[in-house]
Amino acid sequence: MDDNNGCILALAGGVGGAKLVAGLAGALENQPDAPSLKVVVNTGDDFEHLGLHIAPDLDSVTYALADLNDIERGWGMRGETWQFMQALERLGGETWFSLGDQDLATHVERTRLLNGGETLSQATAHLTRALDIGVDVAPMSDTPVRTIVHTDVGALAFQHYFVREQCRPAVSHFEFVGAEAASPSPLLDETLSRTDLRAVIICPSNPFISIDPMLAMPGVKARLASARAPILAVSPIIGADAVKGPAAKMLSELGYEVSAAGIYAHYDGLLDGFVVDRVDERLVTQMAPAPLRAVKTLMKSAADRTRLAQTVLDWCDELRC
Amino acid sequence: MDDNNGCILALAGGVGGAKLVAGLAGALENQPDAPSLKVVVNTGDDFEHLGLHIAPDLDSVTYALADLNDIERGWGMRGETWQFMQALERLGGETWFSLGDQDLATHVERTRLLNGGETLSQATAHLTRALDIGVDVAPMSDTPVRTIVHTDVGALAFQHYFVREQCRPAVSHFEFVGAEAASPSPLLDETLSRTDLRAVIICPSNPFISIDPMLAMPGVKARLASARAPILAVSPIIGADAVKGPAAKMLSELGYEVSAAGIYAHYDGLLDGFVVDRVDERLVTQMAPAPLRAVKTLMKSAADRTRLAQTVLDWCDELRC
Repeated sequence: MDDNNGCILALAGGVGGAKLVAGLAGALENQPDAPSLKVVVNTGDDFEHLGLHIAPDLDSVTYALADLNDIERGWGMRGETWQFMQALERLGGETWFSLGDQDLATHVERTRLLNGGETLSQATAHLTRALDIGVDVAPMSDTPVRTIVHTDVGALAFQHYFVREQCRPAVSHFEFVGAEAASPSPLLDETLSRTDLRAVIICPSNPFISIDPMLAMPGVKARLASARAPILAVSPIIGADAVKGPAAKMLSELGYEVSAAGIYAHYDGLLDGFVVDRVDERLVTQMAPAPLRAVKTLMKSAADRTRLAQTVLDWCDELRC
Repeated sequence: MDDNNGCILALAGGVGGAKLVAGLAGALENQPDAPSLKVVVNTGDDFEHLGLHIAPDLDSVTYALADLNDIERGWGMRGETWQFMQALERLGGETWFSLGDQDLATHVERTRLLNGGETLSQATAHLTRALDIGVDVAPMSDTPVRTIVHTDVGALAFQHYFVREQCRPAVSHFEFVGAEAASPSPLLDETLSRTDLRAVIICPSNPFISIDPMLAMPGVKARLASARAPILAVSPIIGADAVKGPAAKMLSELGYEVSAAGIYAHYDGLLDGFVVDRVDERLVTQMAPAPLRAVKTLMKSAADRTRLAQTVLDWCDELRC
């Protein structure tokens, strides 16, 4: 992809976001004069564990772009093994967070790069280059932002809520510790400043925990809102269910309608276009004049991902005219 | 084992030492009123790699005592896999030092304990307890001692010499950086002070790189020499070859006779008994009045280990009378 044809900014969180990002990369790769793709990833889920810097969303995006992701399990790497975890259990170590043997190499190498003085952006560029990923991928920030989930059993660090407690506690609100003092990463900052930014695509990620941490950094929401480029989002909710993860449960606990409409409401006027699943086609009429389109959004195969990505890119082109 | 029946101190380095240590633990376990076994392990080979504290000799001893060691390969853990290394290679990481997926759990957990403020002795006790090891195992010191190998191609950090360069450079001398300022670990210190110390057994480890780092710490050699307990060593050389590793090559490069006699000479009067292999039986007469005995020293099976250990323990008993 050539940087002279403008660029597209994709904001992504975990697995759903990673799928659409891979679809966007695939769709743009086959397109003449394609804009370059800039992928900015949530780091609110990052945490230190066993002395390693774990960045689950960066890894989901990276593995999907490198075609290393496990599609059946839905997370982590294909062909993963768990010998490390079994040995760690034998040693009495902390095993509530599963680290695959291959996946571990990413965490060890990233931690080594960070401890050697690289920023998270530099370490991410290092790892994505090594995996021959042709698009720019960066964290939302090089300074830590940590999502805290306030629940009926108290405040929980994100991975304690998400993995250890398996999202069981009822959520009252979220806190993004460090967000107020955080600056957007160089890639996010530069891309938001580009006059040839052609579109912002908010991937089908959980808005509360994958996208809001980015919007919580000073200036980001305002810069997005004032950008000339259209902002499109794809709903992570189909019918009344999240494709994956706790988005539906959170919508309910936070008092939103448990549907794509709840997601749209949460984005609060930020969107120029909102892609919902075709099972939610009724919303297109019901919510008019809100800019909704209904297509097949479930991404089970690479073809699904590319098709959805192309639909989104085409709509971006229309909106820019 | 009961600490009221006195104790035996074993000094061990890598794989050969680990085998005899396992044999000693096995032999003492079956003996009524057995003394307790205190195992002190070389840390001159330890190094920081990929941000992890690697302690190859402590691990060899620990894995052998926990019956987790790979006897066929001769090092590391049984049933080991290498998915981490392959993933690390894909990421362009440093792959000259092989870290198995199971083995990695030890390094990650130890590094976590050390970074949490534990001493290496405490971390080692933590790991050996988790593996139900019934004997005390400790590093020689809680402060870093790092073996530097001076060679015809310059000074090399130990693992660079040993693994990366596969012991090819010719050795001129060794340096144990930090040894002068290092204190013996609590286990080594306490055991050397015990009036009921019944024997010191120097395992069939490479004297230059496994035992000398311990003897280089202030006071250790003198305290051993003045202890009332007999000091026995088992030769790591059989005929003109090391059972494993570069001991024979080092003897030659350093101007010693390349045989068990070279090892005995290097220990320079420290030994009250020296066990050589029966293929070296001629040395018993040739070197008289040096206290040599020739037995089968090659340890291929658990029975071999226990038999050799029992021979050594019996001789210790004789010498104490």
